[in-house]
Amino acid sequence: MVDATTLAAVGQQAGLAAQRVMERCDALAAISETPGQLTRVYLSAEHVQANRLVGEWMAAVGMRVWQDSVGNICGRYEGLDPSAPALLLGSHLDSVRNAGRYDGPLGVLTALEVVSYLHHNAVRLPMAVEIVGFCDEEGTRFGITLLGSRGLTGTWPADWLERQDAQGITLAQAMRHVGLEPRDIGASQRALSDFCAYLELHIEQGPCLQTADVPLGVVTAINGARRLNCEFIGHAGHAGTVPMGQRQDALTAAAEWTLAIERITAATGHNLVATVGSLECLPGAVNVIPGQVKLSLDVRGPRDDDLAALLEQLLAQGHKIAARRGLSFAAEQFYCIQATQCDAGLQQRLSQSVTQLHGLAMSLPSGAGHDAMAMATCWPVGMLFVRCKDGISHHPDESVTPTDVAFAVQAYINTVLSFGTEPVCER
Amino acid sequence: MVDATTLAAVGQQAGLAAQRVMERCDALAAISETPGQLTRVYLSAEHVQANRLVGEWMAAVGMRVWQDSVGNICGRYEGLDPSAPALLLGSHLDSVRNAGRYDGPLGVLTALEVVSYLHHNAVRLPMAVEIVGFCDEEGTRFGITLLGSRGLTGTWPADWLERQDAQGITLAQAMRHVGLEPRDIGASQRALSDFCAYLELHIEQGPCLQTADVPLGVVTAINGARRLNCEFIGHAGHAGTVPMGQRQDALTAAAEWTLAIERITAATGHNLVATVGSLECLPGAVNVIPGQVKLSLDVRGPRDDDLAALLEQLLAQGHKIAARRGLSFAAEQFYCIQATQCDAGLQQRLSQSVTQLHGLAMSLPSGAGHDAMAMATCWPVGMLFVRCKDGISHHPDESVTPTDVAFAVQAYINTVLSFGTEPVCER
Repeated sequence: MVDATTLAAVGQQAGLAAQRVMERCDALAAISETPGQLTRVYLSAEHVQANRLVGEWMAAVGMRVWQDSVGNICGRYEGLDPSAPALLLGSHLDSVRNAGRYDGPLGVLTALEVVSYLHHNAVRLPMAVEIVGFCDEEGTRFGITLLGSRGLTGTWPADWLERQDAQGITLAQAMRHVGLEPRDIGASQRALSDFCAYLELHIEQGPCLQTADVPLGVVTAINGARRLNCEFIGHAGHAGTVPMGQRQDALTAAAEWTLAIERITAATGHNLVATVGSLECLPGAVNVIPGQVKLSLDVRGPRDDDLAALLEQLLAQGHKIAARRGLSFAAEQFYCIQATQCDAGLQQRLSQSVTQLHGLAMSLPSGAGHDAMAMATCWPVGMLFVRCKDGISHHPDESVTPTDVAFAVQAYINTVLSFGTEPVCER
Repeated sequence: MVDATTLAAVGQQAGLAAQRVMERCDALAAISETPGQLTRVYLSAEHVQANRLVGEWMAAVGMRVWQDSVGNICGRYEGLDPSAPALLLGSHLDSVRNAGRYDGPLGVLTALEVVSYLHHNAVRLPMAVEIVGFCDEEGTRFGITLLGSRGLTGTWPADWLERQDAQGITLAQAMRHVGLEPRDIGASQRALSDFCAYLELHIEQGPCLQTADVPLGVVTAINGARRLNCEFIGHAGHAGTVPMGQRQDALTAAAEWTLAIERITAATGHNLVATVGSLECLPGAVNVIPGQVKLSLDVRGPRDDDLAALLEQLLAQGHKIAARRGLSFAAEQFYCIQATQCDAGLQQRLSQSVTQLHGLAMSLPSGAGHDAMAMATCWPVGMLFVRCKDGISHHPDESVTPTDVAFAVQAYINTVLSFGTEPVCER
């Protein structure tokens, strides 16, 4: 329930809208392949069902509705000038397995409330407002991500149609199962001139807003990431017979490096994070000094140059530790994604809307990936984060409060309304 | 081959004896259940065959030979007073899987050269000299160790006969397969008055003698050991969205503790060693901050009080690190064996013999377990270590030099001869 103070702050309409958003998140959560859990993957019966429901909600607020050729559900609320580049609002409707109910749908359903506001107040902006419910951001079924948004940007790699799910069904076969034609996937691509901007509202999936005690945050950038497989090779030995001073213990070397990663990254700041998430000891017996340790390194940050500098420093440290201990060290990068900068003008619009509500607006980078990464290759992107409980996401315990959603809806409405008075800069 | 300088130092007889020992180690290594590898386990056809061969070698140097009721091969070279407590020399004839050829047999075969010396020089000591080739020290087949030596001490637990090997054959069934009668196992027990001392020669299985550049070492104690399963519990989180300062990373806590274990143990000295040999990260994904880490701790040292004090300090450190980082820490001991002190008088005899050869004698604790641990519950024990290459053991690369073996045989002979002139102290 939205409390009285909130209603006073954001108005009756935003309060009612927030309650509707919460109910619709619940309704979408019930569309799942697993009873009692939420799992809704690309090209499933549940995907079709969710699209149909969201399409009905779009139609109910005066939007023209269609499903595109890769399976995104799309709606358009016309503007004063039908030929002007439209404002696109969206997020995704698919989920991970045993998911929370807000990651993705919250962005689509709050966008619907923005259009609902325009529709019920008979407001026409200079440009149309479109909403997209992306069909696959998580990559749960085929192990490839951002399929929906890369449908709009027209950047599906050639081999995606042949990708198989866990049952050996190819993506092309799965498309045909739900009445989509793989030959036509190119039709989902939108012209650069179709949109002036892409806005996405999403739960933070991290603890920063909660820690700062604010409901909303404006995203500065989506973190770039590097992932590496690393290895220390020392010398296995008898845990009883080799004195402490004569060991080449791969685990103590890896431990020293793990601590150095933590210390150096924290000291560097710049919103950089680094994680050793997996570590394997070989041979891994209680009575044998580890001769080899394999470990992963995940480094992320909102600026690619900071990220590269940190990574260089961490790897140099790994080599230094290994050399001092008489071991060898190796690291191989297997994943790299560049950072995505959010558009400065859109950040400013979002900040002004949040400031109108709270007197200040917090800016923060996004540690997780989003459809906005793909969209940013074609259009200016802006993102608004909503506080989530304890930073928990991709888990049934994912939680947002109706009050925060009411603030989010009002800020989103204010931001979109600003396009009626302040024209977006041409790129 | 034994070089000329060595022959000058230890005499022609020791040089020839060392060559015979090396040849016999090769001959025993050929008695294996796996072609091209050495694996010789308790109550196998190879056990019977090795006992027969060693028994023939015993008989050839004037010993009375018998196999006892648990399968040890035993020989007795009579002394001037048949009723005097005998001097017992021995080690084990069984092996781990894919073993080296010196761990165990070297001690039996050098003991044979001691008796050979007595026999060929017509020397009779005041007391008899017995040799035992223990049937099972490693515990390879039934997962229980020191079966041979605990046959002599009469301390087989009641349930050992029902233990099964990997094929489901009980120890009792296996005994019958080779003509031993489980009912008679008590007959292997020797009276306390049968022996005045037990001496065991063994390869070091560690790198200390090699590092010190000496061929022989006198063992002060066999290390006690404690093994624990330990656990840090923090909070799993998204590797991209949780800032460095807001993490409860179980791996960085475990890394800090692992380094503390290394630092504190090395600084404590007293021949203590501590090893984290296995470490498991949960959930163990590259993009998830580890919420839980399970790791093992193995601590060993020649003095139980030192060991207990170190362990207390290490566990306190684990709790301290966990508390500072907002995690929990737990440790459970699952294995404990007390340290075994070697007899001071026997250490002195061994040291004198080594000093005669080299001008000095190095003393060191044994990091690995030996039959002497069981024997020490009944009789004074002394152990002589022989340098092995790079500390490698339980591996086909296990290696000793003929020259070191020549020194070992001479030191062993000198030590046993000392019992002819200096009576052993009554306990």
